[in-house]
Amino acid sequence: MSSETKRPRIGIVGTGAIGGFYGLMLARAGFDVHFLLRSEFDAVVSNGLQVHSAVHGDLHLDPVQAYSSAADVPPCDWLLVGTKSTGNAALGPIITRMAAEGAKVLLLQNGLAVEEQLRAVLPENLHLLGGLCFVCVHRTAPGMVTHQAFGAVSVGYHSGPAADQAERLSIVEAGAQMFRQAGVEAHVMADLQQARWQKLVWNVPYNGLSALLRTSTSQLMSDPASRELVMALMDEVVQGARACGHVLPDGFAQHLFAVTESMPDYKPSMHHDLVEKRPLELDAIYARPLAAALEAGCDMPRMRTLYQALAFVDRNP
Amino acid sequence: MSSETKRPRIGIVGTGAIGGFYGLMLARAGFDVHFLLRSEFDAVVSNGLQVHSAVHGDLHLDPVQAYSSAADVPPCDWLLVGTKSTGNAALGPIITRMAAEGAKVLLLQNGLAVEEQLRAVLPENLHLLGGLCFVCVHRTAPGMVTHQAFGAVSVGYHSGPAADQAERLSIVEAGAQMFRQAGVEAHVMADLQQARWQKLVWNVPYNGLSALLRTSTSQLMSDPASRELVMALMDEVVQGARACGHVLPDGFAQHLFAVTESMPDYKPSMHHDLVEKRPLELDAIYARPLAAALEAGCDMPRMRTLYQALAFVDRNP
Repeated sequence: MSSETKRPRIGIVGTGAIGGFYGLMLARAGFDVHFLLRSEFDAVVSNGLQVHSAVHGDLHLDPVQAYSSAADVPPCDWLLVGTKSTGNAALGPIITRMAAEGAKVLLLQNGLAVEEQLRAVLPENLHLLGGLCFVCVHRTAPGMVTHQAFGAVSVGYHSGPAADQAERLSIVEAGAQMFRQAGVEAHVMADLQQARWQKLVWNVPYNGLSALLRTSTSQLMSDPASRELVMALMDEVVQGARACGHVLPDGFAQHLFAVTESMPDYKPSMHHDLVEKRPLELDAIYARPLAAALEAGCDMPRMRTLYQALAFVDRNP
Repeated sequence: MSSETKRPRIGIVGTGAIGGFYGLMLARAGFDVHFLLRSEFDAVVSNGLQVHSAVHGDLHLDPVQAYSSAADVPPCDWLLVGTKSTGNAALGPIITRMAAEGAKVLLLQNGLAVEEQLRAVLPENLHLLGGLCFVCVHRTAPGMVTHQAFGAVSVGYHSGPAADQAERLSIVEAGAQMFRQAGVEAHVMADLQQARWQKLVWNVPYNGLSALLRTSTSQLMSDPASRELVMALMDEVVQGARACGHVLPDGFAQHLFAVTESMPDYKPSMHHDLVEKRPLELDAIYARPLAAALEAGCDMPRMRTLYQALAFVDRNP
């Protein structure tokens, strides 16, 4: 569809739940979207991409501009990276191969310092942006994604050839605008690090506990012990953020707690990673924030306990 | 065997791993031991009691003085209680029925304040003693126990009709002597509460983590994350004990850590309870120590995190 458009050409690296959902939303809005796939290539070529969305209804993209090799993808102006953060160090050659001159790479991952990892393997001429997805999606089968709720994306500039703050802002604004044109709520983040800490307030308790206790958000919210633990973990992350110089809005943890209570039952990605014996994103979501807070003089004993338990499970599946 | 002896008559309440192991050791030493059984009654009547011991070899007691009802047991001078602490509140009538006038009840359980719970349902004329078992045993089938290592019992007086400290000490010494005559190492505890806290230094990390992570001591000791977590939990329990007025010996946690490292691979009872979907002994091992320490001004965030996670699992098996 619409490969003749003047709109930017978008490459999707990692067509799991995140890449599949946003890539499909952008493609159906007329963007020229190219999907790099691995294990899902055959299924997507045969049946297209499907998103069963509680918000947008059933969406189907077929045919899909699908590729099994980065070398075959035409040069893209934007690259949306929705892979697991555990694989960032290996993404350099793939992204470099898919990127047009001066392309913008938007890293749609949770956790802290994920951009630093990727930046180290990217050429200097590429802009690197961080993105946070506030969305309940999960992959149910190759090329099939279920979208349960929300969808907003927050975008912030990390590093690259932008000459000044004005250029950085205009690039970030262009990224946000792209999502808005696809019917996706999008925000510009003034402070990417602060936003990453804010997201951690949710991810630290819910991702880890849903994996460790093999459960879902509703179950966690319906037991008094896990409710207390979620809130205590949230408080610790807020304190860790503050120690690192990011003062979060008053009542921020309570707000996320209440939002989760009214959310449809959801199993965060770490739950699925554990059940399907994939590596857990412990470095980005636990180890790096713990190290950053500790360096700033803030111990987070509950979060560290959860991290140590998860690290054991990750290595002894 | 030897029901004609002048030695005290011993009743075993709860013939699982603990009751089965110590009861058999006492019976083969010539004590007049009577076993109250529930689900294992038929198996024990048919096949006797078997202990496969890495220390003592294969031991077999057959026939066994076995009973399915407390009303049928002759009055016992000593009652050894090796049931789960989760059932203490219901033991009053059973123990009362089995007890001779002025009998000694020895509660062989882990955790804090288990005697208080039992005391509340016992008649005043019974002596209540607390016992701590340093032993690796587990039940493998009805009437069958595997004994992997250790075996020592520590005994302390809790409450009852003893007139003075001298009488209390003589009762405790008699209890210890009974075990020694059966070839079991036994110690007199001057301070039962301190001893219970010391035992918690082991039980808090290993029982809980072996259940939560569905693993064994060797696995916990072979992963760097769980090693750190075990040591951090031990340190917290030592601090909690100190807050409650019990100064543990220097290097006590390090000692238990090293002992566990050289121990045969072991799955603590809480692991088996979780796998077999029995209630976990969370009140005695976690909730009461946490409450006692908190009252003394000592927070134990790692232990509380572990407790909250286990409480969730206990209620959502």
